[in-house]
Amino acid sequence: MPGPQRLVDGPAFCGVRTFMHLPQATELSDADAAIVGLPLDSGTYYRTGQRFGPEAIRNASVLLSAYSTAHRLDVFELLSVIDGGDAAVLPGDIPMSHRVIEAHLRPLYAADVVPIGLGGDHSVTLAELRAAAAKHGPVGLLLFDSHPDTWDECFGQKYTHASPFRRAVEEGLIDPTRSTMLGLRGAPDGSEDWDIARRLGFEVRTAAQLHEQGLGGVPAQARARAGTGPVFLSFDIDFLDPAFAPGTGTPAVGGFSTAQMLCLLRGLAGVNLVAADVVEVLPAYDVAQITAMAAAQVVFETMALLAVRRKAGVA
Amino acid sequence: MPGPQRLVDGPAFCGVRTFMHLPQATELSDADAAIVGLPLDSGTYYRTGQRFGPEAIRNASVLLSAYSTAHRLDVFELLSVIDGGDAAVLPGDIPMSHRVIEAHLRPLYAADVVPIGLGGDHSVTLAELRAAAAKHGPVGLLLFDSHPDTWDECFGQKYTHASPFRRAVEEGLIDPTRSTMLGLRGAPDGSEDWDIARRLGFEVRTAAQLHEQGLGGVPAQARARAGTGPVFLSFDIDFLDPAFAPGTGTPAVGGFSTAQMLCLLRGLAGVNLVAADVVEVLPAYDVAQITAMAAAQVVFETMALLAVRRKAGVA
Amino acid sequence: MPGPQRLVDGPAFCGVRTFMHLPQATELSDADAAIVGLPLDSGTYYRTGQRFGPEAIRNASVLLSAYSTAHRLDVFELLSVIDGGDAAVLPGDIPMSHRVIEAHLRPLYAADVVPIGLGGDHSVTLAELRAAAAKHGPVGLLLFDSHPDTWDECFGQKYTHASPFRRAVEEGLIDPTRSTMLGLRGAPDGSEDWDIARRLGFEVRTAAQLHEQGLGGVPAQARARAGTGPVFLSFDIDFLDPAFAPGTGTPAVGGFSTAQMLCLLRGLAGVNLVAADVVEVLPAYDVAQITAMAAAQVVFETMALLAVRRKAGVA
Amino acid sequence: MPGPQRLVDGPAFCGVRTFMHLPQATELSDADAAIVGLPLDSGTYYRTGQRFGPEAIRNASVLLSAYSTAHRLDVFELLSVIDGGDAAVLPGDIPMSHRVIEAHLRPLYAADVVPIGLGGDHSVTLAELRAAAAKHGPVGLLLFDSHPDTWDECFGQKYTHASPFRRAVEEGLIDPTRSTMLGLRGAPDGSEDWDIARRLGFEVRTAAQLHEQGLGGVPAQARARAGTGPVFLSFDIDFLDPAFAPGTGTPAVGGFSTAQMLCLLRGLAGVNLVAADVVEVLPAYDVAQITAMAAAQVVFETMALLAVRRKAGVA
Amino acid sequence: MPGPQRLVDGPAFCGVRTFMHLPQATELSDADAAIVGLPLDSGTYYRTGQRFGPEAIRNASVLLSAYSTAHRLDVFELLSVIDGGDAAVLPGDIPMSHRVIEAHLRPLYAADVVPIGLGGDHSVTLAELRAAAAKHGPVGLLLFDSHPDTWDECFGQKYTHASPFRRAVEEGLIDPTRSTMLGLRGAPDGSEDWDIARRLGFEVRTAAQLHEQGLGGVPAQARARAGTGPVFLSFDIDFLDPAFAPGTGTPAVGGFSTAQMLCLLRGLAGVNLVAADVVEVLPAYDVAQITAMAAAQVVFETMALLAVRRKAGVA
Amino acid sequence: MPGPQRLVDGPAFCGVRTFMHLPQATELSDADAAIVGLPLDSGTYYRTGQRFGPEAIRNASVLLSAYSTAHRLDVFELLSVIDGGDAAVLPGDIPMSHRVIEAHLRPLYAADVVPIGLGGDHSVTLAELRAAAAKHGPVGLLLFDSHPDTWDECFGQKYTHASPFRRAVEEGLIDPTRSTMLGLRGAPDGSEDWDIARRLGFEVRTAAQLHEQGLGGVPAQARARAGTGPVFLSFDIDFLDPAFAPGTGTPAVGGFSTAQMLCLLRGLAGVNLVAADVVEVLPAYDVAQITAMAAAQVVFETMALLAVRRKAGVA
Repeated sequence: MPGPQRLVDGPAFCGVRTFMHLPQATELSDADAAIVGLPLDSGTYYRTGQRFGPEAIRNASVLLSAYSTAHRLDVFELLSVIDGGDAAVLPGDIPMSHRVIEAHLRPLYAADVVPIGLGGDHSVTLAELRAAAAKHGPVGLLLFDSHPDTWDECFGQKYTHASPFRRAVEEGLIDPTRSTMLGLRGAPDGSEDWDIARRLGFEVRTAAQLHEQGLGGVPAQARARAGTGPVFLSFDIDFLDPAFAPGTGTPAVGGFSTAQMLCLLRGLAGVNLVAADVVEVLPAYDVAQITAMAAAQVVFETMALLAVRRKAGVA
Repeated sequence: MPGPQRLVDGPAFCGVRTFMHLPQATELSDADAAIVGLPLDSGTYYRTGQRFGPEAIRNASVLLSAYSTAHRLDVFELLSVIDGGDAAVLPGDIPMSHRVIEAHLRPLYAADVVPIGLGGDHSVTLAELRAAAAKHGPVGLLLFDSHPDTWDECFGQKYTHASPFRRAVEEGLIDPTRSTMLGLRGAPDGSEDWDIARRLGFEVRTAAQLHEQGLGGVPAQARARAGTGPVFLSFDIDFLDPAFAPGTGTPAVGGFSTAQMLCLLRGLAGVNLVAADVVEVLPAYDVAQITAMAAAQVVFETMALLAVRRKAGVA
Repeated sequence: MPGPQRLVDGPAFCGVRTFMHLPQATELSDADAAIVGLPLDSGTYYRTGQRFGPEAIRNASVLLSAYSTAHRLDVFELLSVIDGGDAAVLPGDIPMSHRVIEAHLRPLYAADVVPIGLGGDHSVTLAELRAAAAKHGPVGLLLFDSHPDTWDECFGQKYTHASPFRRAVEEGLIDPTRSTMLGLRGAPDGSEDWDIARRLGFEVRTAAQLHEQGLGGVPAQARARAGTGPVFLSFDIDFLDPAFAPGTGTPAVGGFSTAQMLCLLRGLAGVNLVAADVVEVLPAYDVAQITAMAAAQVVFETMALLAVRRKAGVA
Repeated sequence: MPGPQRLVDGPAFCGVRTFMHLPQATELSDADAAIVGLPLDSGTYYRTGQRFGPEAIRNASVLLSAYSTAHRLDVFELLSVIDGGDAAVLPGDIPMSHRVIEAHLRPLYAADVVPIGLGGDHSVTLAELRAAAAKHGPVGLLLFDSHPDTWDECFGQKYTHASPFRRAVEEGLIDPTRSTMLGLRGAPDGSEDWDIARRLGFEVRTAAQLHEQGLGGVPAQARARAGTGPVFLSFDIDFLDPAFAPGTGTPAVGGFSTAQMLCLLRGLAGVNLVAADVVEVLPAYDVAQITAMAAAQVVFETMALLAVRRKAGVA
Repeated sequence: MPGPQRLVDGPAFCGVRTFMHLPQATELSDADAAIVGLPLDSGTYYRTGQRFGPEAIRNASVLLSAYSTAHRLDVFELLSVIDGGDAAVLPGDIPMSHRVIEAHLRPLYAADVVPIGLGGDHSVTLAELRAAAAKHGPVGLLLFDSHPDTWDECFGQKYTHASPFRRAVEEGLIDPTRSTMLGLRGAPDGSEDWDIARRLGFEVRTAAQLHEQGLGGVPAQARARAGTGPVFLSFDIDFLDPAFAPGTGTPAVGGFSTAQMLCLLRGLAGVNLVAADVVEVLPAYDVAQITAMAAAQVVFETMALLAVRRKAGVA
Repeated sequence: MPGPQRLVDGPAFCGVRTFMHLPQATELSDADAAIVGLPLDSGTYYRTGQRFGPEAIRNASVLLSAYSTAHRLDVFELLSVIDGGDAAVLPGDIPMSHRVIEAHLRPLYAADVVPIGLGGDHSVTLAELRAAAAKHGPVGLLLFDSHPDTWDECFGQKYTHASPFRRAVEEGLIDPTRSTMLGLRGAPDGSEDWDIARRLGFEVRTAAQLHEQGLGGVPAQARARAGTGPVFLSFDIDFLDPAFAPGTGTPAVGGFSTAQMLCLLRGLAGVNLVAADVVEVLPAYDVAQITAMAAAQVVFETMALLAVRRKAGVA
């Protein structure tokens, strides 16, 4: 069963940087999940350079190991995971890049392989959702983000990293009634910003609420709302505070720690995850790889969620 | 009404960096508040280079937007704010620089414009307080800082960033009975350090106390103590932990997050703010602008406090 | 006459960062030249983030002073220069951004103001050339660059930073018989790359040639070839070696020092400069502002070239 | 009594960087404690370069001051502390380096001087424990770490930074029944990893437990378990979250803040500390010295714990 | 024929980072040359962390392209090159790591594949030379380095990065009469240092000589001395000046530019290269990848030297 | 005889960072020369933070070794050198700091110890010259600098880093007829700037001249002009190009390489050096210590110049 290099196999710093040293494969028949890089950053309206996000996350991933102490399981005893390379996006051409991404992902869905995307800016999630919905129909969205990304337009443009979830609802890719947005705090342009998300049907939990009320029941509520249907987990790394994730495009103070991130992600055990991504890692602003390491951990936790289901015999 | 560039006006990364793209103006008659750079760093006894603080904060400010989700208002619908440029300090000459700063601020007070200072080291606050008190009489001080800055002398010098509040009390610029110091923790030189602050009449809340007891009632207590009189809010960026604000002169571990900072500042709604500053931003030690972004947010929160009062019809 | 802040006016680190503290103006009638930011980076095929180039160059420019020791003149006694702000480009939409840039520049040409552009990626030069040629007809090009930027397409895209001079020749904006390319060395995709430039009619001086033969007669040859007609000087900062300009998008080893850059630029005194730009400054990869400082110096040298002509009474 | 430079003696940035400007001494008769650098990093299996840890910690230490506000005492009125220089380790030769370290420490124990080690990777602690146990017999261990460091082998090697506490138990240097491990979270290689530590007899408190249950009773429990016997406190800087300590070899997200670190360390007042170290500081990955400052604070807190005992008359 | 991704295949920033996106292969039958990572850094006596050198060089290599303008050929039309992964070295165990490296390289030699090593510290070259000499007998050495690396011992250790060429001569791996050392300047421990190299039989060209006399005839002399026999080219990145290669272990001021490096390497066309390496890249000290890019260029130039021979029909 | 740690004594990264591990001593009777830190930066008009220059230079110095290949001598076999610690300057008070520096140096002169200063900003040289002239009378100055530092005033201040040599001539500390300034290029405020230096009597060699004419006869000319009288060598690190010395206060493009620096300094063998300094190292802007290493090398070269004289029996 394809799996990562084990620590006992040799030093983690040896070898070409696929995600966790997983085999880079195009053969999908044996795989349960695949890491896919989505290095598009043409949809950004502030800092840019997220195209190097997949490189950075792969580099940082080699320090991860296979065992989840939270879920008490070895991810790769339960799941076969490959590194599926990158979609060959076209810088400067968002619509075409979205088509490239969708085309890159469709064979994965056809082969029942769960794709885990490495952004790239958040505009890539729209393309991922198109591929997901083509297989599963409208999915529940679990969004970790400091922004709702539900603007209609940004400088007259409709397909930037400010609008993927507006578009996704319009295109019927998301079922908002099963969806939750967590961590909103970043500079809204007016009172409308977050109300739009609510009016689109999303459950919105702002950072201020989470900081005040604590994270206690939050994962359970998100799970309950998501129900048993297919769920897409999208993690914008700016959910984390800039102290924990400086390497991102539109950082927002007042965010969350990685300890809080782990608490929330691990609390989602049981959701019917059909895809996930971690986006907006911008290595040129990272320091000592801390953003990339946090992103790699998010990927690991999503794989662990898949493994939990497999272990329980439901996936 | 002068205001910042809106996000709909074009990308935030376009244009000369005034604070939030606010108009740089010398005409004060239409303004409610003015951003003023105070790039003095000759009063520092450890790291120096705070002279580039205003540049860094202005650069970081362009990612801010006008709407306060905490107070549910658009700051620039309520307030007219300008960027008043920098006071032309003289490096190496603290007394003269203090006179320059005071002279730069007096016309603002004369025109009923609230000055919001961008330091510079903390010695600049003494000059700001002189201008403030000349208009308002002794003010209440709300100090966010890891140090009390109430030494008498430092290597025989009386006007450094270690002593502004000692001097200010001596000069009758501050009413300690309406004043609170929050966050003290940085290396004191002896038992006297914090006792001096208490003996001068300040309410002192140490970091250890705040960490142990939580921040719950703290803003309300500070507001109650401040009463209805004029208040000066001074925010030394080293109130934040070095993880959140590495770019500063005398960092102190065991500090606060930006989430905690927001909780405290937003809880001050209602105070009669007549001036504010954010000081000790030292860009040469910053990473990925996180310190500068935090400082810019502090400025935004103080403007929002002014807007709350305006909205309530009391300013 | 509008000019920069002089050193005697106060510390260079004081004040909002326009280029050299020049007045930010929209009134063109008194101006001889104008600095214009062109923060587009959607045309990049490797590193991106050049949108922050104008900010970085302005920040670095304040250490410059008015006097040219090479030409023995005070630039601002001879020229009136303003900071004309930034063109409000649209990230992700190159054609529209090019129209915005051209529209931003046309009034300058109408008012006989020489525009000096701050990139942004090299795709912006096409828009600048369109505005220049609309006024002056085909211009001679003096290109400092490690790449010829004369590809036809890059991933099927025709308007990226790999093709501006191909497009410019096709559109009749450049007169190649009066044009010289200096410094070519960066990774060509095949034997064709530089031959294309030659076939388009450019004089090509590769880095290998310049290193072997020395820079002695080079400026004179470029001047002779340019003749008396209008000349556009475009300086891609990757002409410099990565050691001298690490902050750029497609760095190429084996480049030039800033001393060599000064030698070449100063040797161009006499050319009929009608526009200039410095492009591809990417601050996220810069260290200690050395790239931005080099770029600011390029701008100063181009202004000095204008002043030389003014002093000689020919402009 | 040997002590550090006081703030009143002159600026902290003056003078050769011994720890806190303490006298560098080889004469031990007057000393109560000694700082000793242990710049070995040959035992690392991921990032390396901890050999510059002592330099960085000393550099950062000069901003500390003598007074502990937590314990209300002046450390250097109670204790005489020297900087004992570095053990001359041999890079690439772990066993020999361990012998060098032990030989460097033995005279300190002979003179009743408490050694406080500055790592270096965590493998140095084994050598320190050998010297400690030679004097005191098996010691209680208070370990702050994201990993238990109890592997048997790592790539067939038995004396790396992955195994010191396994070896120490085998060699009878530690009494696990008096020992506690705090903060475990870093990538284990399987279910065995932490169970090994438990089976060796250690009390294990994982990061997940501490985050969920809070730190309230933790120091008291650790003190109770340690009893009155001799205790070795070992602080791996990766106990802190990468946001607070990016400069380390095997960072692990989901860690602790420096405020939490202070809470825990200060809560240990009363333990019978006979030695301490802070390890795994890797300056090449540090930013703005925040990791080194945190490490220097750990050293200060351990000195303060010694001073508490001295003040109480029990040491 | 295995080759790299071409620029026309898609953006260089897409895809897993093998060297120049070359296929990672274990099948050697079709290959002419193979990139092999040798991430050992246990042999360093100053800065360490060269274990991340191969990662950094691979990351930087993707900006290279296939065509050599100097030699007017497309490397990958002439040569089939693969990325052969990394040798699984054991940190802390130099002799064992050397055996691992040698074992990793022997099959390449058996299959007539030219290995191009990515260090790692310079101690790895000894292991490479053992594999080379096993196939070819004593080789000529072309060494670019600021140090001769011919110490007998360093702190009693015989197999560090200070001694590979002493050992290699002793073991009969090198034919000094066909060997040249270029660029010596780094801190020698005494008059003996360079005399040893000379007495061992090497031709020594110091940096001072090269700077004074120019590089004109140097490559031809080195070629003439090397003759027609097999040659090993070893490039210690500290041959370059720290301005051009800051990311290295024992930098030495007064070095060479990358332009000079290109001049020398390209002048070696014709030598009978049987192996090459580039060593001592230490990414933790690199800035903006300039060191890694220079190292990647060295690799490209060595491949181009192989292609020149192939084109000439002599290999 | 006091000397540095030898490489054979142990790894250079071990031990407290005095300059080259030289003994820190207050006993002067055995010493020929002494390193003295002068961490004043209150005289800076642009970037500041040079107070950490001595720390950084000491840290970087440990990689130096004792043998000069240029002069073929072991410096410490000929000279006894100590690390004399730092003068306890007062930040913000230039006149008082100058008195402290002079007082710190006078005992050295009294004991016939040659002081080698580590700045600090260039204003410290005035204090050094006062001490030098008190012993030796007016000295010849050999200045390596991008600026002449001969302004009369800077913002009305007479004792900044812009004026030391104006003041020194006025005070009769320098004999301009024996003095040479090398490397001038940095932004002058007008035609007067360099003419002032010439009118004061200095020989001025601009960077443009040196780049054009080469460095061939330059050291000999400077030596000839200096004659046999006492000479003070002052090296402002911004003589080097920002690529070679990014960590400085007022960098100027178009500068010199470290290879050129070595050529010039080594060419001065024979001058009657009575003091030297290296100033304007600003570590907060340094990268990978390259500036600090260059400065440490300057110190070494000045010590070697002393050793040359000692070897020749003239000192």
